[in-house]
Amino acid sequence: MKHELNIWVVGGDMRQAKLAQLLALDGHTVHTYALEQDRSTGPLPEEDLSQAEKADCVVLPLLVSTEGGLLNAPLSQTDHPLSDVLDALRPSQFICGGRLDSEILALAAHRGLTIRDYFAREELAVANAVPTAEGAIQLAMEHLPITIHGARVLVVGFGRVGRLTAQRFQALGAKVSVAARRYEQLAWAQAMGLGTEHLAHLAGWLCGYDLIVNTVPAQVLGRLELEDVKEDCLILDLASKPGGVDLRAAGELGLTVIWALSLPGKVAPVTAGAAIKSTIYNMLQEAGY
Amino acid sequence: MKHELNIWVVGGDMRQAKLAQLLALDGHTVHTYALEQDRSTGPLPEEDLSQAEKADCVVLPLLVSTEGGLLNAPLSQTDHPLSDVLDALRPSQFICGGRLDSEILALAAHRGLTIRDYFAREELAVANAVPTAEGAIQLAMEHLPITIHGARVLVVGFGRVGRLTAQRFQALGAKVSVAARRYEQLAWAQAMGLGTEHLAHLAGWLCGYDLIVNTVPAQVLGRLELEDVKEDCLILDLASKPGGVDLRAAGELGLTVIWALSLPGKVAPVTAGAAIKSTIYNMLQEAGY
Amino acid sequence: MKHELNIWVVGGDMRQAKLAQLLALDGHTVHTYALEQDRSTGPLPEEDLSQAEKADCVVLPLLVSTEGGLLNAPLSQTDHPLSDVLDALRPSQFICGGRLDSEILALAAHRGLTIRDYFAREELAVANAVPTAEGAIQLAMEHLPITIHGARVLVVGFGRVGRLTAQRFQALGAKVSVAARRYEQLAWAQAMGLGTEHLAHLAGWLCGYDLIVNTVPAQVLGRLELEDVKEDCLILDLASKPGGVDLRAAGELGLTVIWALSLPGKVAPVTAGAAIKSTIYNMLQEAGY
Amino acid sequence: MKHELNIWVVGGDMRQAKLAQLLALDGHTVHTYALEQDRSTGPLPEEDLSQAEKADCVVLPLLVSTEGGLLNAPLSQTDHPLSDVLDALRPSQFICGGRLDSEILALAAHRGLTIRDYFAREELAVANAVPTAEGAIQLAMEHLPITIHGARVLVVGFGRVGRLTAQRFQALGAKVSVAARRYEQLAWAQAMGLGTEHLAHLAGWLCGYDLIVNTVPAQVLGRLELEDVKEDCLILDLASKPGGVDLRAAGELGLTVIWALSLPGKVAPVTAGAAIKSTIYNMLQEAGY
Repeated sequence: MKHELNIWVVGGDMRQAKLAQLLALDGHTVHTYALEQDRSTGPLPEEDLSQAEKADCVVLPLLVSTEGGLLNAPLSQTDHPLSDVLDALRPSQFICGGRLDSEILALAAHRGLTIRDYFAREELAVANAVPTAEGAIQLAMEHLPITIHGARVLVVGFGRVGRLTAQRFQALGAKVSVAARRYEQLAWAQAMGLGTEHLAHLAGWLCGYDLIVNTVPAQVLGRLELEDVKEDCLILDLASKPGGVDLRAAGELGLTVIWALSLPGKVAPVTAGAAIKSTIYNMLQEAGY
Repeated sequence: MKHELNIWVVGGDMRQAKLAQLLALDGHTVHTYALEQDRSTGPLPEEDLSQAEKADCVVLPLLVSTEGGLLNAPLSQTDHPLSDVLDALRPSQFICGGRLDSEILALAAHRGLTIRDYFAREELAVANAVPTAEGAIQLAMEHLPITIHGARVLVVGFGRVGRLTAQRFQALGAKVSVAARRYEQLAWAQAMGLGTEHLAHLAGWLCGYDLIVNTVPAQVLGRLELEDVKEDCLILDLASKPGGVDLRAAGELGLTVIWALSLPGKVAPVTAGAAIKSTIYNMLQEAGY
Repeated sequence: MKHELNIWVVGGDMRQAKLAQLLALDGHTVHTYALEQDRSTGPLPEEDLSQAEKADCVVLPLLVSTEGGLLNAPLSQTDHPLSDVLDALRPSQFICGGRLDSEILALAAHRGLTIRDYFAREELAVANAVPTAEGAIQLAMEHLPITIHGARVLVVGFGRVGRLTAQRFQALGAKVSVAARRYEQLAWAQAMGLGTEHLAHLAGWLCGYDLIVNTVPAQVLGRLELEDVKEDCLILDLASKPGGVDLRAAGELGLTVIWALSLPGKVAPVTAGAAIKSTIYNMLQEAGY
Repeated sequence: MKHELNIWVVGGDMRQAKLAQLLALDGHTVHTYALEQDRSTGPLPEEDLSQAEKADCVVLPLLVSTEGGLLNAPLSQTDHPLSDVLDALRPSQFICGGRLDSEILALAAHRGLTIRDYFAREELAVANAVPTAEGAIQLAMEHLPITIHGARVLVVGFGRVGRLTAQRFQALGAKVSVAARRYEQLAWAQAMGLGTEHLAHLAGWLCGYDLIVNTVPAQVLGRLELEDVKEDCLILDLASKPGGVDLRAAGELGLTVIWALSLPGKVAPVTAGAAIKSTIYNMLQEAGY
């Protein structure tokens, strides 16, 4: 970017609070709103929303609103109607938020505003795969009575999260196999020194694993597959809804399943905030700022 | 596959010779033609081309023909007109070759034959990136007076070859940066612990590198970029034609450039043959064999 | 070993319980005593201590006794005087325990028994360094708001635990430096691609780290060194008593220090039990069994 | 060190030439003698040996003398009697050389000179293990028709070179086992994720390997062990004399053995020169300079 910007960070959790700090460190003039309980900075002055019209860039939370039309603002003690926030903005501003749904887009369009979705950016998805993979390692370490070193691990799915997760377990000395559907993905897994299984033929092949990490958001571990899993195997499901494990069958079989969602904000909010910052910079650059 | 096949391996180099061996080890009935000088097997009996019509599967070389309409058969002492080979085949056979051009496709179509291109398969491209990356390491070791450990390496491009090359240099202790154009690729590089440069802004930033490995088949290292490269830096160009380095400018600047093409067949023909086998199996499976 | 043995596993925690399971899986006749609350096996029959005289090999716990002369038996609901146990053994048996002190050795000698210390074996110390290193990673993940990937980590000391810890943080993408005293150790760190600091000159050089992991059991991080550590840096002390951190100074400076002892038994009791098994096998082999 | 020194680099090969350059870059006043054919610097002025008495530090080559009492000076076109060199030095100087033998020590003592051996320093041995390990990789890549990735590699011995070699082959995707004698070494290998074999029981277990790298300077691969090695296995012997392979038996069995000595100076003279520099700095520091 060519110059310092006036940036408003509005609502959100520790990620947005950290984002605001980092933007200020880069020399931008940063205002925060509805983040007053961020403990890492101490109480912030109550900003006047009417001044937001002077912003070059406005950053809304990841999940912009909660039920009831309120701004998603867990670090604020006050309720902030989203409409108040949107009313304070102008069409010429660069406005962005995360995981936009049709409702929020309609509210914005109604006011002539364009909101860009930073969470839809591929580079943020890749960056977030790192804390997700580390979260999987942490959970595995917390719940397994054996070391990752030497453990037999199956990673189901070989997209962003699958790749980085498999690579990290391997780096810690686990014996890692990957189950994927496409020959190309299996070739990548082999090129990385990982074992391979074909996703369509898992039933009957899962008895050897100490840990199964699923990353596919479709039921790939059904009763048929689970019947073969040994009792002390840990199953981590990192996939977004509907998840990849038949939880009912798993329960009946006495298997331990941990369905871990939204790990980046939980395990490494500071890193997650930094990744949002980089992504917004990329978006601003593409928009000519 | 459900059963053993009658497979003809026709022409080619050590990769095809090894492929024939591996297919036979898997229990198929394998015939070779125009591979009689393969030293690893000893002289093979001269097969009768008229028997090729009994084949379930026919494997042509990677680069099917040479100039003058001859079969590409460096391991044969005889000239074999490609038309003779094609005349011996039947439309119902599974026929495949590598790097098919329009001419060969036309010759085949004229006879009602369908030839599938195994070299166009993504899984083979990924598998071949491994020996290519190792070839780059070998060349760097042979030509640099320093160890890879501690060397500052720039990998230009972050596709298949770029990824595996960067990862391997990093694994050997080099300080590796990646130059790429897309934010997504840069995010992947960061997730792998690599430094990043934007491909569009390399000029003026190349003075620190001991080794530059290009993988982009377009001139990304022109005079402007090269002017900054230090004299004892080695430049490896792994990109297919037209390559990525302005060779004339490099020469005038006294820089050492090695343009290394077709590394898999050169540095690891046995591995390359095994990769072709896997790919052909995938193709057969998809075709219902 | 040439044949199956009669082995008694007497007292201890989950490691000994697992050890007993593994020994039985290897075909030995295994008796357990004072391990009756091990949940992984279900209630075990109350063994008759008078039968222990038939054992070829007797395994005592890691820390053989607790205060008051009792057998260290956290998985038993009963108090077991150590003297009762020792009275049941015979001089011709192979008897081993972990972390033997002079008191227990005297008690044994008084009865003509020789007890060997499996915890004093170098191969067990190396094997235990793996779960210790993983425990350090788990603690860092739990307590840091950033990812290990990209974190700046200093590992103080480069013995068994230091090496494996540094290598694992590096494998997860951290920027790792090692502080050691001997040039040889610093050369090893460099050969592994790690940064180096001289242990004697840490004061003034610690402000850049997000995580400091100490492995030296002597106060190497005193007030002078700690004054420079940034407030949100996490300090993990893995060193046995007296530890390596001036806890009082750290407290006054508002620094977070976690002193983590005996990690193997806590984070990976099953792996730790398996390591004891291997070590006992080595000892038996050396003793001619 | 506290100040700039007057340093003479006397004789040697590209390593000493590079050492001289690096010392000068660090600000020392550097004189070279009998290095006049070093192409990397261009012709150097003929220095007057009588001025060497002004040196604070004198660096002799690695292997100080050749047969006939001459200075080891492959980069010089002239013969330089070692006695002339020693006669020019004074007892108060810091004099060092590499791989000193009793003859050279006697010559020095006769003149009241103390020569320290930089090659006997453990940190140099560790540093040199890196280019040795890389040399092993280069040789393996040059001579094997398969990729290192996926190759089954046995590293015999687990000292400095064994460790760094095994780790690097593993990092490139090979399946690496280590053969060692001590339980402690085997535990280290396991902690690094390597397979293990006991050195005393190799006979009958070597048929699976594509590459065997020996680092033990005693005949550990005799006829009995070699009989089982498959014909296309490559054997690299990195051990100094007498080496670890029964070359006669290997020849009779038709096995390919490459005995590679002194790799650091061959594969990475610049890195090897830098390592000598670091070592001499350490020695000077210990000597109070």
